[in-house]
Amino acid sequence: MEQQFDFIKEIDKEKVVTRQNYITAADRQETDSDHAWHLAMMTILLSEYANQPIDVLKTVTMVLIHDLVEIDAGDTFAYDERAKVGQHDREQRAAERIFGLLPDDQADKLRCIWEEFEARETPEAKFARTMDHIQPMVLNDATDGKAWREHGVKAEQVLRRNADTAEGSAVLWEYARTHFLIPNVEKGNLQ
Amino acid sequence: MEQQFDFIKEIDKEKVVTRQNYITAADRQETDSDHAWHLAMMTILLSEYANQPIDVLKTVTMVLIHDLVEIDAGDTFAYDERAKVGQHDREQRAAERIFGLLPDDQADKLRCIWEEFEARETPEAKFARTMDHIQPMVLNDATDGKAWREHGVKAEQVLRRNADTAEGSAVLWEYARTHFLIPNVEKGNLQ
Repeated sequence: MEQQFDFIKEIDKEKVVTRQNYITAADRQETDSDHAWHLAMMTILLSEYANQPIDVLKTVTMVLIHDLVEIDAGDTFAYDERAKVGQHDREQRAAERIFGLLPDDQADKLRCIWEEFEARETPEAKFARTMDHIQPMVLNDATDGKAWREHGVKAEQVLRRNADTAEGSAVLWEYARTHFLIPNVEKGNLQ
Repeated sequence: MEQQFDFIKEIDKEKVVTRQNYITAADRQETDSDHAWHLAMMTILLSEYANQPIDVLKTVTMVLIHDLVEIDAGDTFAYDERAKVGQHDREQRAAERIFGLLPDDQADKLRCIWEEFEARETPEAKFARTMDHIQPMVLNDATDGKAWREHGVKAEQVLRRNADTAEGSAVLWEYARTHFLIPNVEKGNLQ
């Protein structure tokens, strides 16, 4: 129980890892904890649209933990190719340390779920990835493309990043494309 | 799907509802979204200690949504008796509006889970309450009782608030009492 509470205290640090997207109700960027909570809510609300049946609890667990490694490795902006160099190794070391705080059985279980997310192969991992890709579009659309404009993001970059978003849910990707992407290209928020 | 995405955008506002507890890695108070994420993680990690078997997904859903009403009603500090006047009515109106954004079936489902949390009767509601009460102790203990000291909170107030914490998990309450409460009485962080 002490190891579990050490881990619970350690992951509090996720609340200060900042992402590039802006939240809608204040002029500040989103944190990893904000983002993970939002993805968990979306998973519960939208699981009916998964291409294949998913284990919802496993998928919720996956999105809740998917960014824990950023406590050590930091957030890597999706459109910063230079920052991505070494990202994999940094995140593997972080996973080793952070999940390693837990008792072995729970450490193994969470580490496996995180690796599953990274591998993007199972229905749960594909759906979690769909959530992870669509949520920033919701925020960008609601903030008049603020993060996209700040970084001069191009529509083709967003399309490339979302090459596999439909694998988790074709209908959700179609909704996101028509409701969040195309309107922001038309408004000039995406080049 | 449009109603669901309207709800997903609306609940983004939970990220700016501030609580009284401080986080551990920066000099700022916790937000409701931080808190809900942390409770969901704790539920997944600690469910084995529930007094009675619990449906983990339902309990995770419960803690993820339990503070959504605070988007309209604001956070009510546990030890502010004056602020509690009218809290119930404010939160009921908020639940009506916020869950009402969803399609009827999902609105009913989430509203019922929230009401279940409020009623504190089922094993899931009791365990969710245990999480909700223990997590601020983890943060207070890790920040040398910062929020407790700022508000001059007394040990007897904490004990009164935690009168039913053991109903969700006797062993977790015992751990919290001996590891987070007593040491902070000894340090003078709780009067």
